[in-house]
Amino acid sequence: MNTLIQLALDEDTVFNDLTAQATIPADTQGTARIVAKSAGVLSGITIVQAVFSAVDSNINCRWLKDDADQIAAGDCICEISGPLRTLLAAERTALNFLQHLSGIATATHAFIEAVQDTNCQIADTRKTTPGMRHMEKQAVLHGGGINHRMDLQSGMLIKENHVEVSGSVSDAVNACFNAGHDVWVEVECETLDEVQEALHVCPDIILLDNMSVDSVCKARAVIPKSILLEASGNITLNNVRDYALTGVDRIAIGAITHSAPALDLSMRVQRSHEQQP
Amino acid sequence: MNTLIQLALDEDTVFNDLTAQATIPADTQGTARIVAKSAGVLSGITIVQAVFSAVDSNINCRWLKDDADQIAAGDCICEISGPLRTLLAAERTALNFLQHLSGIATATHAFIEAVQDTNCQIADTRKTTPGMRHMEKQAVLHGGGINHRMDLQSGMLIKENHVEVSGSVSDAVNACFNAGHDVWVEVECETLDEVQEALHVCPDIILLDNMSVDSVCKARAVIPKSILLEASGNITLNNVRDYALTGVDRIAIGAITHSAPALDLSMRVQRSHEQQP
Amino acid sequence: MNTLIQLALDEDTVFNDLTAQATIPADTQGTARIVAKSAGVLSGITIVQAVFSAVDSNINCRWLKDDADQIAAGDCICEISGPLRTLLAAERTALNFLQHLSGIATATHAFIEAVQDTNCQIADTRKTTPGMRHMEKQAVLHGGGINHRMDLQSGMLIKENHVEVSGSVSDAVNACFNAGHDVWVEVECETLDEVQEALHVCPDIILLDNMSVDSVCKARAVIPKSILLEASGNITLNNVRDYALTGVDRIAIGAITHSAPALDLSMRVQRSHEQQP
Amino acid sequence: MNTLIQLALDEDTVFNDLTAQATIPADTQGTARIVAKSAGVLSGITIVQAVFSAVDSNINCRWLKDDADQIAAGDCICEISGPLRTLLAAERTALNFLQHLSGIATATHAFIEAVQDTNCQIADTRKTTPGMRHMEKQAVLHGGGINHRMDLQSGMLIKENHVEVSGSVSDAVNACFNAGHDVWVEVECETLDEVQEALHVCPDIILLDNMSVDSVCKARAVIPKSILLEASGNITLNNVRDYALTGVDRIAIGAITHSAPALDLSMRVQRSHEQQP
Amino acid sequence: MNTLIQLALDEDTVFNDLTAQATIPADTQGTARIVAKSAGVLSGITIVQAVFSAVDSNINCRWLKDDADQIAAGDCICEISGPLRTLLAAERTALNFLQHLSGIATATHAFIEAVQDTNCQIADTRKTTPGMRHMEKQAVLHGGGINHRMDLQSGMLIKENHVEVSGSVSDAVNACFNAGHDVWVEVECETLDEVQEALHVCPDIILLDNMSVDSVCKARAVIPKSILLEASGNITLNNVRDYALTGVDRIAIGAITHSAPALDLSMRVQRSHEQQP
Amino acid sequence: MNTLIQLALDEDTVFNDLTAQATIPADTQGTARIVAKSAGVLSGITIVQAVFSAVDSNINCRWLKDDADQIAAGDCICEISGPLRTLLAAERTALNFLQHLSGIATATHAFIEAVQDTNCQIADTRKTTPGMRHMEKQAVLHGGGINHRMDLQSGMLIKENHVEVSGSVSDAVNACFNAGHDVWVEVECETLDEVQEALHVCPDIILLDNMSVDSVCKARAVIPKSILLEASGNITLNNVRDYALTGVDRIAIGAITHSAPALDLSMRVQRSHEQQP
Repeated sequence: MNTLIQLALDEDTVFNDLTAQATIPADTQGTARIVAKSAGVLSGITIVQAVFSAVDSNINCRWLKDDADQIAAGDCICEISGPLRTLLAAERTALNFLQHLSGIATATHAFIEAVQDTNCQIADTRKTTPGMRHMEKQAVLHGGGINHRMDLQSGMLIKENHVEVSGSVSDAVNACFNAGHDVWVEVECETLDEVQEALHVCPDIILLDNMSVDSVCKARAVIPKSILLEASGNITLNNVRDYALTGVDRIAIGAITHSAPALDLSMRVQRSHEQQP
Repeated sequence: MNTLIQLALDEDTVFNDLTAQATIPADTQGTARIVAKSAGVLSGITIVQAVFSAVDSNINCRWLKDDADQIAAGDCICEISGPLRTLLAAERTALNFLQHLSGIATATHAFIEAVQDTNCQIADTRKTTPGMRHMEKQAVLHGGGINHRMDLQSGMLIKENHVEVSGSVSDAVNACFNAGHDVWVEVECETLDEVQEALHVCPDIILLDNMSVDSVCKARAVIPKSILLEASGNITLNNVRDYALTGVDRIAIGAITHSAPALDLSMRVQRSHEQQP
Repeated sequence: MNTLIQLALDEDTVFNDLTAQATIPADTQGTARIVAKSAGVLSGITIVQAVFSAVDSNINCRWLKDDADQIAAGDCICEISGPLRTLLAAERTALNFLQHLSGIATATHAFIEAVQDTNCQIADTRKTTPGMRHMEKQAVLHGGGINHRMDLQSGMLIKENHVEVSGSVSDAVNACFNAGHDVWVEVECETLDEVQEALHVCPDIILLDNMSVDSVCKARAVIPKSILLEASGNITLNNVRDYALTGVDRIAIGAITHSAPALDLSMRVQRSHEQQP
Repeated sequence: MNTLIQLALDEDTVFNDLTAQATIPADTQGTARIVAKSAGVLSGITIVQAVFSAVDSNINCRWLKDDADQIAAGDCICEISGPLRTLLAAERTALNFLQHLSGIATATHAFIEAVQDTNCQIADTRKTTPGMRHMEKQAVLHGGGINHRMDLQSGMLIKENHVEVSGSVSDAVNACFNAGHDVWVEVECETLDEVQEALHVCPDIILLDNMSVDSVCKARAVIPKSILLEASGNITLNNVRDYALTGVDRIAIGAITHSAPALDLSMRVQRSHEQQP
Repeated sequence: MNTLIQLALDEDTVFNDLTAQATIPADTQGTARIVAKSAGVLSGITIVQAVFSAVDSNINCRWLKDDADQIAAGDCICEISGPLRTLLAAERTALNFLQHLSGIATATHAFIEAVQDTNCQIADTRKTTPGMRHMEKQAVLHGGGINHRMDLQSGMLIKENHVEVSGSVSDAVNACFNAGHDVWVEVECETLDEVQEALHVCPDIILLDNMSVDSVCKARAVIPKSILLEASGNITLNNVRDYALTGVDRIAIGAITHSAPALDLSMRVQRSHEQQP
Repeated sequence: MNTLIQLALDEDTVFNDLTAQATIPADTQGTARIVAKSAGVLSGITIVQAVFSAVDSNINCRWLKDDADQIAAGDCICEISGPLRTLLAAERTALNFLQHLSGIATATHAFIEAVQDTNCQIADTRKTTPGMRHMEKQAVLHGGGINHRMDLQSGMLIKENHVEVSGSVSDAVNACFNAGHDVWVEVECETLDEVQEALHVCPDIILLDNMSVDSVCKARAVIPKSILLEASGNITLNNVRDYALTGVDRIAIGAITHSAPALDLSMRVQRSHEQQP
């Protein structure tokens, strides 16, 4: 986390903000508010806190909302006090993190609402922004989703490419079981035939990829409950409920991390009469 | 760039891909193709190249498309040859970069097309993904846009918060001119009154923020051509052409970097009969 | 890996070897041999290669033995050619890695031999040397062992401390299952009563910690084969076979990483008449 | 130190401890104790402190023992209070450092006891664990030993390989004296003949390497007291006293750093009735 | 800043100061004073503060002088209290920063005094010490100078080499204007003919490089006030006033950063009777 | 070295050189020459090589002069070929290193010439530029000087502050000898009385600090040849020969590293007719 924050501060030359240096005396203290300009779910307050601390240890944040809170347009999320010059220098970096992560929490939450009252969970994927894997997976939790495997060593997921090289689904699954790691073995199937083949070798999880709702229903009928069943591929807010109603245990959505629009937030310094009523 | 690539490879534990180790013999060589699943504009080939090199110096990329090229669904973008085990381990990290950056180039290009045959340019903002500022600004260029200031020391942009602390637009602009830096001084105005005040102190650029098309027209009428004129705020693909036709020199769009959906790409290992016809 | 190599080279000031600079002309080329002074199993050739490359790209290694090879005292492992000054400067750092990792492979292999012809596997733990987790886990594989979970996010292992806070084994196990991660849930039991409690909540793995061979036998009798069974704690080369014969699936040994003595290796420059017979 | 701690925390993904997150509420406070399970000498409290601070600044350590203290099995070394979730996440990394370094202090101390009432000192070597040179050399001091040269630029030690390239012991020693550095010049001798040759060029230190006790006695007889005399090679707890009694000034032991077994320590969360009697 | 401080502390092995460890008990507290041994302008107190904090958080600095203050020989600049062992270990690194940066502020100030009562400003260049760009540019401000562009992306400066490749001054200037960045375009001219050519394409700044005072006067006469005019090259304390009186807006001096002698400062521990009168 | 080069390239944003991008087509190849504008001694070619390689692996340097060579004004030092855009982007960083280090070699050489035909050597100090210790000490060697201790762990130097805390010169010296490190013990004396006191405890080196030529002569007369004798403090090119003639073994000069003016070098792209005669 610290390395990425440092990269972000450096690439914005936060320690040489010419505008703030020119327009704000070094000793001016003040308060600013981060306010939501549209509704969503909040995520990222630890990172924002760390950004301000890294820039100036005299900046204090008072959070009125917490990670995972739903916020409405107009809500005040945080009051930030300290030297205004460094506070404004850090603004953009802080908001870039907060808007991005809250965007992910918000996108996740939209899927959660779409499948509510089903038993289906919404999971993320490894399609995350380079350098932000952990933060983004936390944001998915804040939005109500669950985390699929964190990385290449915390689970085995046999995809089409692995099958292609191994020769067959069953060869690939058996190779994974024989590798002797304490991790789950999941296999991706794109057709009902592949599902049948997979069933012979009893993977821990079956992932139905790019299959129609109808095919998913048929797969669900033949796959025992002891195997966790997952669906992914071309699933959007429009059709996610249909997939959820097939009885799959969970649905993995890459778009909640790789294509979530930023949540619209802004930071405003408070006028003095607001500060001293 | 190298630090971010390292972060990305580490967070995915690319050097310990349990699935690839189990299913693919260490010495299996092969070829894979990155193929577009939807249309867009490409960006990020230097980074993808660096990702594969960082993982395994024996992997070679042959690019069939270049940065800034328009690509159609189904187009093959790159052929990658080398040890299949490391090639597959690196796949997700490489695609995460390429999909994200091509998404930005694609989003930028959509705005460029919307304003074609006007004299208006499309610029980015500092609302970029933490750690990816330079890559994303390159992607904007690939999409046909231009780069607004890179960081806080390569330009002065007086925003509402600076005016609030300085006392007035003219005080803030004069403070910036007096700071004696070799950079342009830009001032953000939200009303026609603020534009009038700004005109008295002759900034290099005026940014009309969150103003209606009608107000932008009125501002355009009173601002001399010697001052570069920019618009931003609530400008989307739907209304960008209307803003462009007001005669502003350029329009800055945060969404092309902070809310661009990833371009859909996939990587597939080639079957042997494809390789050896 | 690169960061640790850099730390190691820096802490030895390899780029300012006063002795080599004083006694060896800058342009002297030569060859040295890494030779085993006692028997063992080799591990670490990739790292040694990287050490020499980092110090001087003109140094070439020709490996006569491979990772996982058993070596006898007197065996030549590697011939290294290049500028003698930098080659000798890098010697200690290279050998520190190779002796340490080969020590781990050797210690692992001793346990493997002790349990041969049983079905029991030897696993490592997270009790590794700070900064060397991945290298050491590779060394365990080279010695014939298997890898227990790599880190805190690639498996859930409920230990006494977690149970203490959760209130009970069953509460802790259920909390883990409900967390919804794709990882195995393992629970550590120190008594047969705890085993009984654990059986009610069906963990994926049970770890019998610090139990006598006799108690492990009794536990084995009541634990179904569907649960992977592991033993650890106070298990040494003297008693490991007794534990293996109880029928546990595997035995985890912290000492193979945290207390393995270094393998005795040395590097000698070759006399000229050896080089040019 | 900080870089290695960061590597260690990252490789264990301490910031994503799935088990602790699942079983311990985020706001649970508590206390744990690090307790010795066998006797030894303590080393590493500064690093352990830094590990806990790096993970969570709300964790406090109260040390009941200090570096260099001898500890008995059962002794409580440290009481650690704070958020239990992060405290348990950091446990393994902290103990990995403390057990390793205390193992080195303990091994050193065993040699110190073996040579007590002689005037001989026990020194370390550069055969340290990559990345831990400074910590390990401190641990040797804690165990009662002294530090041989820290790195390649803080002393000149002519070994067999340097002599091989230089042509002769005297050529090598003279080259070192002529290099004009403010550091001691030490020469390694493996035979009495080499000792005689070395005496002609008056090195600051002579290191008798791999020589029998008898030969060391003979060398001692001919080497003036003005030259510091050191022995090393195949010296163990069994024969170290014999070497010490020859009158050498000090004995260098690689095994105290490269082959010291970890000291057995554990950390246990305290039950509530222990906390609130 | 932190990375460079870390490099500096590491290269001096500040954490293993053998002399301080041998001569100063670990718990000795005391006070030292940094005193000027010659007159100058101070710069670098933030970095010195950071150096001492990085070495030992128990060291406190009380500054009697501030950045940009003029100091006389004998002035006490700072009183530093804390553990004397670490305080002395950090002394050299702290003074190396402070002497270097104050040397730059002092050299800058000498030029400022030489041009006083003219309207000419003194600017720095990019000829700074690797790794210290930002600190050194701050030191120039402390000395009364102004900052020329910070880096290659915060301004465009067409030099002889660019013209050589572009073909002509006007081609190069037009290419820069067409690149569409928000930065000033400056062009370097070495003859009056080049000035004439430059005037046709209206750059924002003209830099007269290596021209005589006489030629600069002639250039000044033909260049409109709307173009900022700068001089550089072979300008020393001896002739800077002559250049300033030509009416150029500012003069850029590489020597204030690349050739400023260090300011002579020393640190002395205070005798006890000084501390407790 | 690599870290500092990276810092230097980043702080100049070498990868985003707006001027070069605007004026030089991406594929333009060419050659440039580094030429001396004044006479001096060269140092830094390894670093310059590394700078260009780090920026663009297609840039090749052909060195016409070597480190430690004396160069005259007008001499061509290096011919650099490759893509002109990146070559020019890297120019300033490369020259900043080369001018700084050659400045140090040149300043050192001036002192060497001043003391020629005496037996006195010129040594550097630890008063080096933060981050450049190793490079600068190499530059001193290139200029003909020798290196004093590299860092705080490669020698013990008792200065006034250590004596102040220890109580007396003899206490401090004895403490250092008792610390049992393999490094030389040097003591700084400022009066003949301190020299007398020092002689009782036989340090390896005596440093006469801030003493007149006359006092140094008197000290020389009483100090046996077995103790290395060094002088420092207020020694300049004007009086260094007088000090050398007193018979001291060497003279340490802080100014050769902390106050050496940069050597004047420039880089020029070659016109085409120069390239293809």
